[in-house]
Amino acid sequence: MELLLPNPVNSTPLTTLGFLERAATAYSDSPSVVYNNISYTWSQTHRRCLQMASSLTSLGVQRSQVVSVVAPNVPSIESKLVFVDHQSSSVVLEAISLLPRNTKPPQLVLIDYEIYSSGSKSLSTNVDFLDHYEGVLEDGDPKFKWVRPRSEWDPMLLNYTSGTTSCPKGVCLSHRAIFINTMNTLVDWSVPNQAVYLWTLPSFHTNGWSFPWGMAAVGGTNICLRKVDPSLIYSLIKEHKVTHMCGAPVVLNMLSNLTDLEPLDSPVQIITAGSPPSPPVLAKTEAMGFVVGHGYGLTETGGIVVSCAWKKEWNELPLAERARLNSRQGVKSVALTEVDVLDPETGESVKRDGTTVGEVVLRGGCLMLGWLFGNHGSIQGYIISGGENISSPEVESVLYSHPAVDEAAVVAAKPDKFWGETPCAFVSLKKNGELTRIPSEKEIIEYCRDKLPHYMVPKTVVFKDELPKTSTGKVQKFILRRIAKAMS
Amino acid sequence: MELLLPNPVNSTPLTTLGFLERAATAYSDSPSVVYNNISYTWSQTHRRCLQMASSLTSLGVQRSQVVSVVAPNVPSIESKLVFVDHQSSSVVLEAISLLPRNTKPPQLVLIDYEIYSSGSKSLSTNVDFLDHYEGVLEDGDPKFKWVRPRSEWDPMLLNYTSGTTSCPKGVCLSHRAIFINTMNTLVDWSVPNQAVYLWTLPSFHTNGWSFPWGMAAVGGTNICLRKVDPSLIYSLIKEHKVTHMCGAPVVLNMLSNLTDLEPLDSPVQIITAGSPPSPPVLAKTEAMGFVVGHGYGLTETGGIVVSCAWKKEWNELPLAERARLNSRQGVKSVALTEVDVLDPETGESVKRDGTTVGEVVLRGGCLMLGWLFGNHGSIQGYIISGGENISSPEVESVLYSHPAVDEAAVVAAKPDKFWGETPCAFVSLKKNGELTRIPSEKEIIEYCRDKLPHYMVPKTVVFKDELPKTSTGKVQKFILRRIAKAMS
Repeated sequence: MELLLPNPVNSTPLTTLGFLERAATAYSDSPSVVYNNISYTWSQTHRRCLQMASSLTSLGVQRSQVVSVVAPNVPSIESKLVFVDHQSSSVVLEAISLLPRNTKPPQLVLIDYEIYSSGSKSLSTNVDFLDHYEGVLEDGDPKFKWVRPRSEWDPMLLNYTSGTTSCPKGVCLSHRAIFINTMNTLVDWSVPNQAVYLWTLPSFHTNGWSFPWGMAAVGGTNICLRKVDPSLIYSLIKEHKVTHMCGAPVVLNMLSNLTDLEPLDSPVQIITAGSPPSPPVLAKTEAMGFVVGHGYGLTETGGIVVSCAWKKEWNELPLAERARLNSRQGVKSVALTEVDVLDPETGESVKRDGTTVGEVVLRGGCLMLGWLFGNHGSIQGYIISGGENISSPEVESVLYSHPAVDEAAVVAAKPDKFWGETPCAFVSLKKNGELTRIPSEKEIIEYCRDKLPHYMVPKTVVFKDELPKTSTGKVQKFILRRIAKAMS
Repeated sequence: MELLLPNPVNSTPLTTLGFLERAATAYSDSPSVVYNNISYTWSQTHRRCLQMASSLTSLGVQRSQVVSVVAPNVPSIESKLVFVDHQSSSVVLEAISLLPRNTKPPQLVLIDYEIYSSGSKSLSTNVDFLDHYEGVLEDGDPKFKWVRPRSEWDPMLLNYTSGTTSCPKGVCLSHRAIFINTMNTLVDWSVPNQAVYLWTLPSFHTNGWSFPWGMAAVGGTNICLRKVDPSLIYSLIKEHKVTHMCGAPVVLNMLSNLTDLEPLDSPVQIITAGSPPSPPVLAKTEAMGFVVGHGYGLTETGGIVVSCAWKKEWNELPLAERARLNSRQGVKSVALTEVDVLDPETGESVKRDGTTVGEVVLRGGCLMLGWLFGNHGSIQGYIISGGENISSPEVESVLYSHPAVDEAAVVAAKPDKFWGETPCAFVSLKKNGELTRIPSEKEIIEYCRDKLPHYMVPKTVVFKDELPKTSTGKVQKFILRRIAKAMS
């Protein structure tokens, strides 16, 4: 048996690229991408991707060169390219103006569904765009022969992290890693064939949690969304019979604040990550018909790699217990080789007591090839006060349960001589119509005191109109920390 | 990006071995294996596997050495070893007696759940068994440190094909192939976490269609079965709330012949392969509450690699149309790189018209490393009569719809001077109680004439008490062909 070696039949590189061709065969007439009045089938999407690949080749784009997309979740991102949505053009132009004098700027292609579909096909802009997205696509050959990667280790995608703890970094993922992660996610969340997926999660965020490839694998439908607007989300769910969606807890929170709704027609699976869903938010969204799953991942892992691994017998438990269990996300997914939490001093595994904090280390086929530039981040979210570790999600969960609070984030304030770090809460309140009266700082602190041990109660509460967030909806705690440390 | 290469963090070998450790964490108290009154949890199964691995190491078994299991679907096959079920001991002893004189025979371990659990723990046999399975297991260290394969291309499993077209061959599968196939099957059939799987399919058959590893991946429950008995299957489904099972069409046929049943409590997914389910059998099993899926695979592909890819919109179609669609299984699964049907003369792809026959070729990560010994097989199932291709499943489907027919198989008879090959039907009839009267050969032929074009009607019908079948329940057409060709 030792003489049996890999051969050309069994060693084709792992890649998700072939999923598209398969979807065009198996699910040719099923909807692939839907955005406002635009709708494509899988055979159309396949044809469009071949045309775009053909055009890119004609434009001189070669293997291992980077093409970029600056856009929200609109259909053009189905191909991988240098495209600028009209909404983002000023940012891109500003970036180009900062390039060194002798650098040749990249070619720009305009994504403008709203303008283009209104019939205005000429480029009415003073920027030097090559063409519209659809124009570039139409020039391509739909019979273009696409090529497989030379090796499954070839780079496939460069995702930028959004930077909650430091500056954004370019994370490079291989075909192999994306293949493994996609299969892993479909298995971990039991995503069925012909699922209908709503793109509340930005598709550039952590590899879109692998759903761009996952939907091609199961012949599902991608419902696109330009902007995360809770009422629009709710109406799209009902209109398209959405079965799955993903989003940071802020999306759950937005949904839970909707009022006067008709209930959902059938359960919608929503996967959240970044921080655990708080019991009040969980209760409200569950009552609406959402089934909330909880996981953890990084751009560097290409998607969610550890999760709560919900068990059917837990469905019968009371809400508080369900929320406690759902706040855990330490079970490695099937394709992850190893996960551990190490003491950063000794390098030894920490005690598995649910409270000891350390550095998360991961190993497995989903992991990135490496960073293109940038430096290491680290796992945060704990405050050490009077020798006690305070979990900020636990304090935030109490703040979220206050009827006037819309959003809450807790960070370490300027060190206190006695306690060391102390918790400082940043809170935004609900809109006027939903508030009977505006609570004071003291009232919020007393509310927490009723529900938390003394050392966990925030010493300060700062009211903000809105909390600073990354483009993926995660609260930028490093900004809040800076504010908190500057206060005296 | 070209400088980013595989590194120790992202290049751990793909293998399903880690699924077990994960199941022991995520689903520790969930049932893993159930057989009669014996039931284990995933943490017990994990512990038992470590003990068995430890014992095997103590017995001198080394990397890349083969250990064998000769047993039906009973729990001991959860580990990989030299085990003989008491039911099969005479076959094994006969095989050992045929070994050349100077060959050292393998060590034998007795699997005897029925005897062992009755309290008789001594070996009351005159064969030189090392010990009972449970004895070997108990000697093992439950803290044994298991080792990952050195490479994902290391051989993991040696399965023997059952031989419908030639002699059995040893098919060697790598860790990588089994990993890819397992993920592929879970995605293709949307198998959810904590599925309950009934082992109607022998687990040695085509890698158990990857479900031995798939159930560990989803923390599911394996319901074991010593013998394929339709009444027992039905009662186990109801008792254990079975959600998934697999089997050759003969299993579906057996189930469809059951009478006076209470309906199933919830739908049971049953995957079949080998030949398409006939419309009458499909109608009966659907009415009972089974959802029938249809695929195609070989021991050489480690499981099912192409399938029907059922679409939800087809659920509304009439039975005959559903059966026609379900008889197709040509959609490659997501992890298969390529499938094609070639003209064996020219090597070109045949026309995709649903009738032109050729040789099936496959390429992808699920495929075997190679055969240990043996030779090539080929795809059969068509008869060429008067220049027309006759699909034997199509004729069989009509025979199955006859109220007196229990099983049917159609092969090519001795070549006719005028027509070339002609179809010859082998038929077994239902048991006496279910028959009002016994039909004649002429009656069966006339029944077919009413329902099939003239050239497809069998020229001969041979009645048999039972059709010859492989151990996996597939009709041994090569035996029937031999009989048919010998008839004049």
